[in-house]
Amino acid sequence: MAANHPFDRLDELCRKTRSAVCVGLDPHDALMPPDTRGRGLLLQVRDYLHDVLDAIADVVPCVKPQIAFFEALGPDGYTLYFEIVRAAHRRGLFVVGDIKRGDIGTTAAGYAKGHLGPDDGSAVDAVTLNPYLGVDGIKPFLEVGRAKGRGVFVLARTSNPSGKEIQDVGAAGAGVEQSEGALYRRVGALLEQWGAACRGARGYSDVGAVVGATHPDEGALLRRELPHTWFLVPGYGAQGGTAADVARTFDAQGGGAIVNSSRAIVFAWKEQEKSGGAARCAELARAAAIATTEAIRAAVAARKVAK
Amino acid sequence: MAANHPFDRLDELCRKTRSAVCVGLDPHDALMPPDTRGRGLLLQVRDYLHDVLDAIADVVPCVKPQIAFFEALGPDGYTLYFEIVRAAHRRGLFVVGDIKRGDIGTTAAGYAKGHLGPDDGSAVDAVTLNPYLGVDGIKPFLEVGRAKGRGVFVLARTSNPSGKEIQDVGAAGAGVEQSEGALYRRVGALLEQWGAACRGARGYSDVGAVVGATHPDEGALLRRELPHTWFLVPGYGAQGGTAADVARTFDAQGGGAIVNSSRAIVFAWKEQEKSGGAARCAELARAAAIATTEAIRAAVAARKVAK
Repeated sequence: MAANHPFDRLDELCRKTRSAVCVGLDPHDALMPPDTRGRGLLLQVRDYLHDVLDAIADVVPCVKPQIAFFEALGPDGYTLYFEIVRAAHRRGLFVVGDIKRGDIGTTAAGYAKGHLGPDDGSAVDAVTLNPYLGVDGIKPFLEVGRAKGRGVFVLARTSNPSGKEIQDVGAAGAGVEQSEGALYRRVGALLEQWGAACRGARGYSDVGAVVGATHPDEGALLRRELPHTWFLVPGYGAQGGTAADVARTFDAQGGGAIVNSSRAIVFAWKEQEKSGGAARCAELARAAAIATTEAIRAAVAARKVAK
Repeated sequence: MAANHPFDRLDELCRKTRSAVCVGLDPHDALMPPDTRGRGLLLQVRDYLHDVLDAIADVVPCVKPQIAFFEALGPDGYTLYFEIVRAAHRRGLFVVGDIKRGDIGTTAAGYAKGHLGPDDGSAVDAVTLNPYLGVDGIKPFLEVGRAKGRGVFVLARTSNPSGKEIQDVGAAGAGVEQSEGALYRRVGALLEQWGAACRGARGYSDVGAVVGATHPDEGALLRRELPHTWFLVPGYGAQGGTAADVARTFDAQGGGAIVNSSRAIVFAWKEQEKSGGAARCAELARAAAIATTEAIRAAVAARKVAK
């Protein structure tokens, strides 16, 4: 099992690229480069994402297509999502499918079959899942994933402001000091339990957690409490999480976490220039991916020195 | 707004058909009628669901295609989901898209655009959503839905056993008597709040709740606590909920809830005979839909008399 453990593969790619950055592929229509060829949104998204994959494949370990932006484009967009997954695999990238599905029994098995099952390159290496239905909603994904060497990241502490409405339920009081009993910590404990049967070479299981960069104290607490759980960390940059914040979600060896950045990389061109074709925009995405990698690497290294 | 309130339309259809049954369209491959024409699973599913829609359209108000079973069939299955939604609308049915999406900001807006946005008949009348991210994950759907007269059903208390792992967090103790503070009750209170701005003719908002039939005491409690919230009640029959159980989720006028039954209706043929073509199987689905309607109608009426 460990030979094909999903997060062993991810770890190896992080070491090879010296990067812990996941590039979020969120093809938001309002942020696409100018459509100089006038062929319509779907083909524009398609070409631009292929350009971005070409530009970043050797500098980051991982991409995360967000399926919602593809579903927004209708059934053809959904088909494109799988084309982009295959294209990312051909370029050697680890692919997280950001699908946040959550259902039970044969229904969850249906999602697992569609997203973790295929053997033609269109299955992702890991999906994101929602824990609201408990282990019944996770198990069918682990059954398919463990047969195929694929994993899951389950929402624990999300990066958005209103996550607290739900994820703090059960806490003794406000703030991380009084978070004993809070739902997000309960979910974290369950993730350690659900993953215990499938740990890889460095001790991490195939059940990861989504832990938002915007809650650095909680991220650090979860890092201590969940020693066998990979973290996928959204919320860096645009949403307010700093490199020093996300550094706290890494383990003492500087591993066990991957930091997602979406629009600040893929749509870096928006901040920098208003002209230039899609190829130039993809080059700017590469530069942003490198800069993000370096900022995070420096912050993780600084934290190791400070310890 | 109220003239095109989604749950006013649903209520009207319930009265017209004298049924509070939602037929779940879960095209599970292992339950499909024998493929006498040998054209492969996708076309078999397509034809059978059209047959079922023809057979049930005048006896129930509502259908609920479960998108996971379509995603299991790959991108062509996803396309088929929208074809079935359009076909259900052409037959005058209220359509709940069981997609259980949950994400934030522009991501949630992407899902909302894809599932509640289209004007070509392929948008459902309501989607199911997951509350784990709080109001940030719901609002983008309400923005699209309120412009189009479409609604949402948010998971509160799910029907599966392990739902308790998560949904009971915060409760003072075990059982409904000690459920004060439990996540599912907190979610229920939020649904009343989120829907307050958009109530229809009978006082129900456009933010419904999913409340499993397998927890009848909790269902009855939520019915009392959430007077403006429509309930979508899964878990009837196969999962163990009885007609008397689900009757407790209806209001004093016998409205405000719809009971889902999936395989016991669509795949009724499995229990009854092993031969006969797809057309005969669809007839058995119609008979099961009528029998389910009558069982629930009788239980709701009995409860009104007993009060």
